[in-house]
Amino acid sequence: MSLATNDASARAEALAEALVEGVLSGDRRALARTVTLVENATESGREALAKLYGHTGKAHIVGITGSGGAGKSTITNGLALELRKRGRTIGIVAVDPSSPFTHGAILGDRIRMQELTKDPDIFIRSMATRGELGGLAAMTSDVVAVLDAAGKDVIIVETVGAGQDEVEIASAAETTVVVLTPASGDDIQAMKAGIMEVADILVVNKADLPGADSLIGLLVAATTSASHGRLETPVLATVATKREGIVELADAIEEHRKRLVRSGRQDQLRLDRARRHVLALLRQQLLDAALRGPAEDGSLDETVRAVAERRLDPYTAAIRLSHSAGS
Amino acid sequence: MSLATNDASARAEALAEALVEGVLSGDRRALARTVTLVENATESGREALAKLYGHTGKAHIVGITGSGGAGKSTITNGLALELRKRGRTIGIVAVDPSSPFTHGAILGDRIRMQELTKDPDIFIRSMATRGELGGLAAMTSDVVAVLDAAGKDVIIVETVGAGQDEVEIASAAETTVVVLTPASGDDIQAMKAGIMEVADILVVNKADLPGADSLIGLLVAATTSASHGRLETPVLATVATKREGIVELADAIEEHRKRLVRSGRQDQLRLDRARRHVLALLRQQLLDAALRGPAEDGSLDETVRAVAERRLDPYTAAIRLSHSAGS
Repeated sequence: MSLATNDASARAEALAEALVEGVLSGDRRALARTVTLVENATESGREALAKLYGHTGKAHIVGITGSGGAGKSTITNGLALELRKRGRTIGIVAVDPSSPFTHGAILGDRIRMQELTKDPDIFIRSMATRGELGGLAAMTSDVVAVLDAAGKDVIIVETVGAGQDEVEIASAAETTVVVLTPASGDDIQAMKAGIMEVADILVVNKADLPGADSLIGLLVAATTSASHGRLETPVLATVATKREGIVELADAIEEHRKRLVRSGRQDQLRLDRARRHVLALLRQQLLDAALRGPAEDGSLDETVRAVAERRLDPYTAAIRLSHSAGS
Repeated sequence: MSLATNDASARAEALAEALVEGVLSGDRRALARTVTLVENATESGREALAKLYGHTGKAHIVGITGSGGAGKSTITNGLALELRKRGRTIGIVAVDPSSPFTHGAILGDRIRMQELTKDPDIFIRSMATRGELGGLAAMTSDVVAVLDAAGKDVIIVETVGAGQDEVEIASAAETTVVVLTPASGDDIQAMKAGIMEVADILVVNKADLPGADSLIGLLVAATTSASHGRLETPVLATVATKREGIVELADAIEEHRKRLVRSGRQDQLRLDRARRHVLALLRQQLLDAALRGPAEDGSLDETVRAVAERRLDPYTAAIRLSHSAGS
């Protein structure tokens, strides 16, 4: 290791220590900066996270997921305000798939969330999808861990629930809320999207629209017939824009955690979550390490070109790259 | 390597050779079996794929994506029939996120697809989401490669377009069709979902519903203002259940490929696709290799338990596991 690298490491470590101290003492700016460093996968962020990790494990992690347009942000908003009334401190991680087209939509969400950000006991971070496949799940777990160490009582992770990544993120929560609406056939579509089986609580939002009752009936029937060894899944009706049903949702979320603790399932969930977090990080580390050499000496580009021109098949290419990583 | 392993390898290779011969000679059962072996990540499947890969690169790969309920299956269905009329042979890969709740919905899709399966020049495979994160993208690329080698002229890959995985799959196509509907605000939601920027062709399905014209107007404005160096993106209207607009969609898809070839962009796309395919396989291989030892000797479980109990942070855990893989 060169002297310059040593210097950089020392600086990263000093920054990490200062941030950790700030986060643990409730400094909001230190928290915001740590989250940013963790999101950007910097060395300081990693060091801070490693130091903070021993202080995690107290927060109640709540996932809110469902198809686009189901009203997840509005529910998150209402839920955060209700839980604040109950004296809880709140962290919100909103996972927004990024797109050059999204500025308007994201801005809209952020404006809606503004009413929350005046409260110093609510910390909100909106994360865009970016980087390598699989990186998002690890990054979300990391940010949740920082908020947990910062002493937030409840951490709400909001995702669009249709992709594998998002299902992974949602199912990493202790209490996963799946939001459906009577509109546009998304009752069936949501079931297809693989999010039903991760639901601890089902919410039919926009319950003042036609079709709500039949959707609720369908869900009650489905959850009764397919409880597959889990705790019973409550089905709730909300009209989030009018704050209807939010108190009941907050009750159901808090009751779910009590049931988790009583049933001993919480320990299993912690093991599952730890496993996922470690594997997500491992996957990323292995790929980064494997590609460092081949990306620098041009052999990655050469290999990719050989595959594109059908001179080499992708399996053999992957095996060669993985061997060059081991050497 | 033990004698038994040698025997198994020899059998896998013999099976792979027989299957490759069958696939290249147009044997439908050999094709179906090869696809299954590739999906199940068997050694025979990998060997067959390696041998078939030199025969790929001729098919036109078309991605069809969009939010749930947008009518993607109906469009795929209509498109396949239209392209058959034009003398093209077709492969369809439908990526269905799996769920214990989905039996009804998937069965419905499959019944709709039955009318296609009578035609020997249409091969349909429905794939469920399963296995490790990121495995789906690699598996889809593999299945597409087998169908390509089997001589299918057009391969349609249909996915729900909201997750990172699905966006990766859709964007791996040469021509990516994004399907929207006027219903339920999914115009904005789809833009949020990160699929707009991968669209080569935008389709407004259910164009007989109210709001279709304004959505089309919005899309035309958005694509004009944000063409960001790509070819111009056509915006088409369809009513797939009535087969309206399908001929025009087929025209646009074929025209798009011609433009790709003329503009030289096809070569770049091939490189991009090869890179994604190799990286997806490499990621999977590295993880499998890294976990083999720790999973067998119990150190993976031990490490995960230490993380769950906060005796170890996940970064240090991942680093330890990656080191034990290198040794």
